[in-house]
Formats: sequence, structure tokens, C-alpha cells
Amino acid sequence: MSSESEEQQLSKKAAKKEAAKLEKMRRRQEAAALASAASSLSVEEEDSYSSNYGDVTLPELKSCSKPDAGNWSIAISSMDWTRVGALTEELKEKEVLIRGRVHTTRPVSKNMAFVVVRERGFTVQCLVATHEAGVSRQMVKFVAALNRESIIDAIGMVSVPGNPIKGTTQQVEIHVRKLYCVNKAMPTLPINVEDAARSDAEIEAALQAGDKLPRVNQDTRLNFRVLDIRTPANQGIFRIQCQVGTIFRQFLLSEGFVEIHTPKLIAGSSEGLDVEMEIKKHYSEVMDIVDRLFVTMFDSLNEKCRMELEAVGKQYPFEPLKYKPKTLRLTFEEGVQMLKDAGVEVDPLGDLNTEAERKLGQLVLEKYDTEFYILHRYPLAVRPFYTMPCYDNALYSNSFDVFIRGEEIISGAQRVHVPEFLAERAQACGIDVNTISTYVDSFRYGVPPHGGFGVGLERVVMLFCALGNIRKTSLYPRDPQRIAP
Amino acid sequence: MSSESEEQQLSKKAAKKEAAKLEKMRRRQEAAALASAASSLSVEEEDSYSSNYGDVTLPELKSCSKPDAGNWSIAISSMDWTRVGALTEELKEKEVLIRGRVHTTRPVSKNMAFVVVRERGFTVQCLVATHEAGVSRQMVKFVAALNRESIIDAIGMVSVPGNPIKGTTQQVEIHVRKLYCVNKAMPTLPINVEDAARSDAEIEAALQAGDKLPRVNQDTRLNFRVLDIRTPANQGIFRIQCQVGTIFRQFLLSEGFVEIHTPKLIAGSSEGLDVEMEIKKHYSEVMDIVDRLFVTMFDSLNEKCRMELEAVGKQYPFEPLKYKPKTLRLTFEEGVQMLKDAGVEVDPLGDLNTEAERKLGQLVLEKYDTEFYILHRYPLAVRPFYTMPCYDNALYSNSFDVFIRGEEIISGAQRVHVPEFLAERAQACGIDVNTISTYVDSFRYGVPPHGGFGVGLERVVMLFCALGNIRKTSLYPRDPQRIAP
Repeated sequence: MSSESEEQQLSKKAAKKEAAKLEKMRRRQEAAALASAASSLSVEEEDSYSSNYGDVTLPELKSCSKPDAGNWSIAISSMDWTRVGALTEELKEKEVLIRGRVHTTRPVSKNMAFVVVRERGFTVQCLVATHEAGVSRQMVKFVAALNRESIIDAIGMVSVPGNPIKGTTQQVEIHVRKLYCVNKAMPTLPINVEDAARSDAEIEAALQAGDKLPRVNQDTRLNFRVLDIRTPANQGIFRIQCQVGTIFRQFLLSEGFVEIHTPKLIAGSSEGLDVEMEIKKHYSEVMDIVDRLFVTMFDSLNEKCRMELEAVGKQYPFEPLKYKPKTLRLTFEEGVQMLKDAGVEVDPLGDLNTEAERKLGQLVLEKYDTEFYILHRYPLAVRPFYTMPCYDNALYSNSFDVFIRGEEIISGAQRVHVPEFLAERAQACGIDVNTISTYVDSFRYGVPPHGGFGVGLERVVMLFCALGNIRKTSLYPRDPQRIAP
Repeated sequence: MSSESEEQQLSKKAAKKEAAKLEKMRRRQEAAALASAASSLSVEEEDSYSSNYGDVTLPELKSCSKPDAGNWSIAISSMDWTRVGALTEELKEKEVLIRGRVHTTRPVSKNMAFVVVRERGFTVQCLVATHEAGVSRQMVKFVAALNRESIIDAIGMVSVPGNPIKGTTQQVEIHVRKLYCVNKAMPTLPINVEDAARSDAEIEAALQAGDKLPRVNQDTRLNFRVLDIRTPANQGIFRIQCQVGTIFRQFLLSEGFVEIHTPKLIAGSSEGLDVEMEIKKHYSEVMDIVDRLFVTMFDSLNEKCRMELEAVGKQYPFEPLKYKPKTLRLTFEEGVQMLKDAGVEVDPLGDLNTEAERKLGQLVLEKYDTEFYILHRYPLAVRPFYTMPCYDNALYSNSFDVFIRGEEIISGAQRVHVPEFLAERAQACGIDVNTISTYVDSFRYGVPPHGGFGVGLERVVMLFCALGNIRKTSLYPRDPQRIAP
């Protein structure tokens, strides 16, 4: 554990250094680019096709409703945008208007340049060539000089090339007639989306071939999350996370749950109270909900997020999660015995540490062929005071943890609902009952037996995709050293 | 305005007094009830049917899996629970097991008592009478003495009485064979759900007839929210709120939005940033989304929450919201002119105060027959620095507010996406650009024109149901005087 945190500290220092270096480089290059732009501007030749390209003016971008406010306004006035992801062979010979980011530019000659346009993870190749009507050499130059990540609008004909296009998601090409820069990105970005999207395997392979490709580390990514978020893997991760939340809600609503909004501001410390439900007879009813909720979620992710999972796997390779239609349930005692049989001694009435949890995950995978299981009847001593003890052995409790790939993802239990017993349990745990009187009193107004569980959505995505670091699935992670951006 | 806040202060003081009085009364009655229970216990006759009723023991409630752990465990061992809301004539002559709260009890004689059981807002009448097999006088006494809001399990036959039953939602009656108290509520509750559910009209009508019924004020309700939440109106309000959130998400997801989780912990002050979207040409695209989102939401609430809306209206009568399939849009200038025409002078470049907003709502209702409309092109000076000014007049901005029944519910705008202009606008508004450098810098990495809006879900419910007080739609409202429960 200590070596891991030292590693983390070192990586943090390295990230800060790297970010500072990148920032310096950025400023230098920006200044150079500005100077170069200024000089190129002064030697610009007259161009009779100049209305077909250029930067969109600020007044036009202020939601100007006049269709003749500028070249861009005139060009787009009677057109609708087509999504890059919708550009298929069916649109062959059709004129389209697309908006996206400049993913890459590739000048071929003074008469021809390619620009790959990216929108929501989809990419399409655009050809700007003087053999097309209305395209001047100056326009080719303008396009070739576009900064990466700038937002552009392009108008052109959809064409299907004889040979398949490499490196883009779409298999058609746009023969551009008009191209406008809607918003310019700075000439040199602190991180390149192309670099941030590279897998370790690619970097290794290039190194073997004697080519050193840049590797963007996690802290630099987080410092420039606005850019980092644009990689296909990250687009996948946060779309998967949205789907996890959606299924979570849909499933519970379909089971008759009601979503309520509890205050974020409370006087004492407390649990998130994510899912709470009535128990008729047995806390296994809560585990039943967890079981069906997660099996539904995994099924749905595999079905509806196939493209997103592929995008994540391309940069961060992982094996699909192994799970059963009916989730395996083991008691804590059974888990301890499995560890013991494998030569790992743990306190039978203590908690499992991370190492023991991982080991047990391994043993369960070997024996039951699943990476998703429930461990229940935890020792009472390691659970919060409001956890209901077992009816047959007060050393254990009606509680459970759920594991994905050997890591805890859910903690749940039957809660004590009898106020006198709740106060007794609080006292036994050294808690001053006066500090929780509102909580205890609320049970005097009639409360059914109940239980619940808490889930971390970011952890679900991390473990489902075996990403190994919660910072990969948190949009803006926070820790004492990181409260920005 | 000042008289209103004085009124509020007085009502707060009154609420505190009332709560204290209730608490005293509660303690006294609790002591009396305990004493009476003890004495009745000592004179209890032998009862050969004693296994058919009684309190469920704590060991049984600890998720005991032994089917013979106690009378309750034996009675329910081979049965499933039927929801109170599902008790219809189709179940006639069938034996059912139900769980719910004791809504009211009514002893008729030593041989007969009624108990109304409530579950999720549905109520059913249960008859406990010695002419049924297995029911003793002691059981009738036990049932008649049950504390309100206690949780009970009842087993009995579904019967359809000759005359319609008054005061319950279900039109069948349960002839009880067995009845167990799963969890006891205290004998006298700080507020009675029956009192809390009463409308002002009922109280007035009773007063006219010379009968003074208790009125539970808002602060007392919030002090004992756990009980207050059980009224049919409140069950309706929070189910409607859940539906508002559900439609909100479903609509936006269907439009291709992705839900992300932003940090609650940020260094500066900021907007919630609830919905943000790319703008292709004009900020009216944002208003289009608002328009369709809310019309979809209102339609869906009227269709899917009919029972809930009825329950709310029964206690807090309101007229259904008037809205159009295509939402009315007025410019701020048009609004100011309407007010002027009605003799209300307002600053044409200032903000509207609450009074002017209400007046304009009234005028719009009279002229356009709608209580839902959008007011756009607000003066730039009254909007945040990152609001895009209008292309044709920098005194106005590409912004809008949305009103329900004369109250603002949404604030939205096109944001400035050009970093240099953003910094300029911040400076013009007296903001130190250094304090927002991360924000401004993020726009240097390429950002499309965009806009967004923020919505308060609690306000939507309050205004849709014309509830007049945000505390009615907030589960645990917070203010400087209220950080608990």
C-alpha cells in the first residue's frame, strides 16, 4: 500500500512538471503562430472565390437572424446540418452541410488538402481541391492551416471513393465546396486528442520500432479534461455512465420505487441512502433487487453500448465481465473458509481488507466462473450501528457487500427499525444517542422493517470496463490536492 | 413585502409553540397509555385463539428464516402479500395477506371493531368480529387499541359489502382472521395524518357548523415531515415530482443529450449548468428544446399522474395549467409594452420584479389564454457576464426566462463562446478575469456556439399545481433557520 501511494505522489509531481512544460510550449507556439498568421495575411493574393471560406464573424455568431449578414450566413441560410455519424453511402451525390471539429489536416499540394472532421466520436474525411468548382488555392491554404479542434462548417458533395478510407469511422468522403471556421482553437493545444487517445500497446509497438510517441499521463489529462474528454474512449466511458444511471432509474421506477431528493446539507454525518425499501420477511428481498437490477444493467450495457464499449476497449483493452443470470450469493463465513482453504488467514469477525477481497474474487472466479457476486452476513462489529443483527447469531448481521472483479461496489443491509433497539445499538457502538435523536424519533411514528443499499455509479463503470482507476470514470475528480478545474 | 415576512415570522413562532404543546401532550398520553396497557395486561383472560393476533417479536423481524419462529412467522409462512391498491371485487372470497398502516380504528362493541389499513395512499376497511372463526373478544380488544400509523399484517377473506364503503379508496372489505402488529407507533403522534390531510375548505365548513377542527401549519409539518409525508396530497406531490424528473431525463436522452455529473465542490460560485447544448445558428434552438420538453412534460403529467393530481387538488384546490401545444414567445420589449399599456411603468433596461412578472402573467393570460410562456431578449445588464449580447442591439441579450402562472421557472441564454470576448465581457462586468481563468481558457481549445438553461424541479411542481409555497414541494427544505430534520 505505501509503495502505491509513493508512486502516486511521484506521478503527481511528474504531471505538474509536464503540464508546466506543455503550457510554456503552448505560449511559445501560440506567439509564433500569431506572427506567422499576421505575415501570411499581408501577402494574401486577391481571390474571387473568397466568399466560399474564411472565419465566421462574431456578429454572425450572436444568433444573427439576417440571412445575408456574411458569407457563412448566406451559405447556410437554406441548409440543414447532417450529423457526421449519419454520413453513409445512401447520401451519395447529395450536398450536405456538416459541423464538427478539425481532427487532423493533411496538405497534399498547393492545390489539394485533406481535413478529417470529428463530431461526437464519428470522423469523416473531407477533400478540398482546386479541381472542384469554386475552390481556390487560397482556400486550400486556409484549410491546411486550420488549427486542430477548431469548429468548422463544411458544405460539399458526398462521394464514395473506390478504395476504403483508413482511419475514419465513416466510409464516405466529402468533396468540399465551402468551408468556414465557426470558432478557432489555439494553434498548439496543451494536449493533443490524438495523443490522448493512444493505447499503451500502440506506444509500446512504436517504441519497438524505434519511434517514441507521446504518452499523456492521468494528471495531465485531468488538468485539461476539456480536451481529454474528446477521445473516443472517454466519449464511450461517459456515455456508458449515462446509460448506467438511466438503467438504474428505469429499473427501480418500474419496480415501484419513487425518486426523492434528500438535502445535501445535514447537521450530522450520514449515508447517501441511495436505495431504501420495505422488507416483508427477509433481507434477501433487498439482495433480490440488487441481483435483478445489476443483471439487467449488465445485459443492457452489453446490448446498447456495444460501440462505446468497443471504443473503450480499443484504448484500454479488457475482458467482458463474467456474470450469471442469477447472481451467486455466499455468506461471509463461506468466504472466510474459501480464503482459509487457499492458505489466507483472515479474522472471521473482522472486515476483509482490499487484498483479501481481491483474492476472494479470484477464488470465486475459479470455482464459480463469475466476477459478480454477493457476500452476506457480515460480522456485526464491522457494520454501522443501524445494521440489523442476525436472528440466530448476534455476532453477524443482515448485511451484504457486492463485488465486481474482486472490488466492492455496493454495501447494503437491513436497518434496525425498532427505536428502542436502535438507541441500544447506537449506545453499544459508543454513539451519543442525543446527537441522533431526530433519526431515532422518526422511527416512533410507525416504520416497517426495511433495508437498502448504496452504489457508486462511477465505480460501476470503472469495474465493468476494468479501468483500474476511478479518475478515469469521474469527469472532474476531487481530492484534497485537486479542487479544479 | 415587509408585511409578508412579518407574517412568516409570526407563523414560525406559532409553529414552534404548537410543536412544543404537541410534544408535551404526546409525552403525557404516552405515559397514560403505557400504564393502561400494563393494567389491562394483568387482568387478561386466557385466550385459546391467542396465536391469531399480537405483536411480532423482534427475533422474528431480524429476517428469521425459520417458518415456525413465532405466531406471525407460522401465519405468513406460505402466503404472499397483496397490495392494498390491488384489492378489488375480482378477489372476492379469496384469502389475502396485506401489510399497511393503521389509518384509523373504530371499536363497535366488545365483539366487533373496524380498522382502516393504508398502504401507499390506498385504504381498505377491515372487519374484526367474533362471529368469524378464530376471532376472540381479546383479539377485538387488541385491534381496537392499535396505535395509529402502526404497521400491521392482516390475513382475511375479501368480501364485497352490499352498501358502498365511505372514506376508503378500495370498495371491498377484509374479514380478518389473523392480525399482527409488525411495528408499533407511539400512542399519540405529534401530528395526525388525518389532520394533516384536511383542506382549508373542510376546516371552514366545520367551523361554520360550530366544530373546530385542528389545522396543522407548515412549520409543524416540516418538523414532523416523516408523518406529514403520508397525506394523500403529499404522496401525490412527491410522486409528481419524481415523474417530472423522469420525463425531464427521458426527453433529453431521446434528443441525444448525455447526462454528466459535475462536481458539487468548486472553488468559485457558478450556475448549476443543468442543460447545455450546441447552437447551430440561433438561440431559438435552445428555446425550441425548452418548448417541446415542457409541453411533453405537462401532457405526460396530465395523463400519467391523474390520481396524484386529484389527491393534491382535493387538499389544495387548483385549476389545471393553461398551456399551448406551441409555446408563446414574447420579447422583453413586447412585455414591457404590455405592462406600459396596462399602466405599469417598468425600467425598459432593468429586470422585472416579482410584482411586474405576476402582472405580466395576468396580462398574457387575458390576451393569449396561456399560463406558460417564454420572454426573451432580456436587457444585457441584468444577465450574467457570459450571456451573448444581441447581434443588432448590445443593450439586449440572447437570453430568456420562462414563466408558469406568472412566476419564473427557467432562466436560459446563449453563452459567449469566444474566449477574448468572454474576458472582455467579464471585465466590463467588474469581474477579475484571473479568478475565472480556467473557465475562459477552456474556450481556447475549440468550442462551438452553445447555450443552455437551468430548471428547478421543485418549482415546476409547485407552479404546475399552484401550491404557492416551495416548502410544499421540497421534501426537507433548508433555510438559515432550518437545517433539520
